Amino acid sequence: MKSSRSRVLSTFSTATFITVLFAATVSSAHAAEPQAEPIQPIAPAKVQHPERVALGEKLWFDPRLSRSGFISCNSCHNLSMGGSDNLKTSIGDKWKQGGINSPTVLNSSLNFVQFWDGRAKDLPEQARGPIANPIEMAFTHELAVDTLRSIPGYVDEFRKVFKSVKLTISEITLAIAAFEETLVTPNARFDKWLKGDKTAINAQELRGYQLFKGSGCVACHNGQNIGGNSFQKMGLVEPYKTGNPSEGRAAVTGKDADRFNFKVPTLRNVALTYPYFHDGEAATLSQAVDTMGRLQLARKFTPEENADIVAFLKTLTGDQPKIVLPMLPPSSDKTPKSKPFE
Amino acid sequence: MKSSRSRVLSTFSTATFITVLFAATVSSAHAAEPQAEPIQPIAPAKVQHPERVALGEKLWFDPRLSRSGFISCNSCHNLSMGGSDNLKTSIGDKWKQGGINSPTVLNSSLNFVQFWDGRAKDLPEQARGPIANPIEMAFTHELAVDTLRSIPGYVDEFRKVFKSVKLTISEITLAIAAFEETLVTPNARFDKWLKGDKTAINAQELRGYQLFKGSGCVACHNGQNIGGNSFQKMGLVEPYKTGNPSEGRAAVTGKDADRFNFKVPTLRNVALTYPYFHDGEAATLSQAVDTMGRLQLARKFTPEENADIVAFLKTLTGDQPKIVLPMLPPSSDKTPKSKPFE
Repeated sequence: MKSSRSRVLSTFSTATFITVLFAATVSSAHAAEPQAEPIQPIAPAKVQHPERVALGEKLWFDPRLSRSGFISCNSCHNLSMGGSDNLKTSIGDKWKQGGINSPTVLNSSLNFVQFWDGRAKDLPEQARGPIANPIEMAFTHELAVDTLRSIPGYVDEFRKVFKSVKLTISEITLAIAAFEETLVTPNARFDKWLKGDKTAINAQELRGYQLFKGSGCVACHNGQNIGGNSFQKMGLVEPYKTGNPSEGRAAVTGKDADRFNFKVPTLRNVALTYPYFHDGEAATLSQAVDTMGRLQLARKFTPEENADIVAFLKTLTGDQPKIVLPMLPPSSDKTPKSKPFE
Repeated sequence: MKSSRSRVLSTFSTATFITVLFAATVSSAHAAEPQAEPIQPIAPAKVQHPERVALGEKLWFDPRLSRSGFISCNSCHNLSMGGSDNLKTSIGDKWKQGGINSPTVLNSSLNFVQFWDGRAKDLPEQARGPIANPIEMAFTHELAVDTLRSIPGYVDEFRKVFKSVKLTISEITLAIAAFEETLVTPNARFDKWLKGDKTAINAQELRGYQLFKGSGCVACHNGQNIGGNSFQKMGLVEPYKTGNPSEGRAAVTGKDADRFNFKVPTLRNVALTYPYFHDGEAATLSQAVDTMGRLQLARKFTPEENADIVAFLKTLTGDQPKIVLPMLPPSSDKTPKSKPFE
């Protein structure tokens, strides 16, 4: 079967052909490219349970979910800073040093599993982790629940949202996850380009994208979240040297072969989520691109190539969630007192 | 000269008198009471420099003003929690224990001086303190300035706001103070009552206010901020026993007589700013009222009296500032890296 372009050629004059071809190309760019590209644009969040989201937003900012009364979800996934803390590894209870770079919460609902090593299947399961982790919020689920049950404003709100009088850790994490699901960042310039606005990125940024595709970065960083949909070995063609003790997926599976297998991080908002890698050892995008090229692709990018890819990566910053700081319901006289220095 | 009531009595029938007296009482309550009461309502903030406020809001939430890159102004004056941290004393750099209870930032522009011991004359001077305090943000003014100067988004914004290319610690603290000046909380139920809405507080709350006035609390907690306009000795008629080493005003003046002289804290939003006193040793409003009665007024309030005063204090919660979480301009490759664990 002949292509439509061939049929056009056989029927029309050359001048007519050029006009038609141009129209066909433009039309094809608009209609076909979103399917053709290995990266897909994302849409704004669809909020199914606004009351659950509002409750989850309070919990997100509430340091009373930590032993100290000082650390909230937002401490390490700061929504003023790309949903991360911009530190190599995080600061936890009593200033303990976290073991791994805090991944951004932005677009985390698009990840196929949660945590760098994928040990949580979804956001509610993930949210159970930091509350009880002794080097993070260092609380227990029981004490977190007891605390919220002592706060009349929360008791009322949980009752309304979950139509139950229980107030459980499952309800807490469901609410937090509902809030997190709203933290998507649509309308990145690159998304606009994907949707057909060819002026949304400039020539250098487009070169960077073409190189990103052509050199193989896109093999792992693809899909809606430009990552977040597979485990891959850090140091594929050249071993990665780090003082960080994280083993990656091996810590979950117990298999030596999974050592240094990590969930590929999203590249959305990557200009905001420095420093990079699970150990936070790449301080800049330029360093991260250089290291990835050498270790994963056996490729040394030239300074110009590196700059082009970095320029492309900076087009991935989307609209940041607009958050009105919630007012937290005050503790009651019965609320257990935080004792951060004990 | 006869009072108007006497003149009314001599002219009209008894039934007419009662009607007129009622009208006169209502009219007097509406017109005269705002002047007559020792507490005045507050008005919403008048924003003179909205661009300066917007810059100050970013700085307020920016942990890059701290050595660690983790602690911001909002860490200890949390605008989700009444502008305080709800801890006895605060957590600072490397989890160091602060020496004094974090006072609320809400309505702090109405205080006659800043800090518990009044060592700063105004908000810009106050804001210099925590940045450089080794047990708080533990930075230096020089390093804070260097950090902001390395961030292109801040450089542009300071230039626009201050019409200068310097970017100094004075500009930083002026911007933070401009933001803080917006953090007033009008429309407390008690303010509505002061303005003439006699339904704004209930009978118990009114009894509490009358006792608050009649027993002498109002001698120190008066004016627009219901405090914040004088130094007073903690433990006036009975010594205050505490393990907290703060000396109060004596640390500024060097005079023994000023020992335990503290700035009287505001009672606005006091239901949100627990725990109480400079050492945070009063966990509840009830405890605080009991201690104040005994130590300052030589008065042991009955449980009913205590409950009435607490009910009144809970009418002092005003409209909390509506804050849209600011997006912080990202660091550049030249921004000094925070090293929280060194």
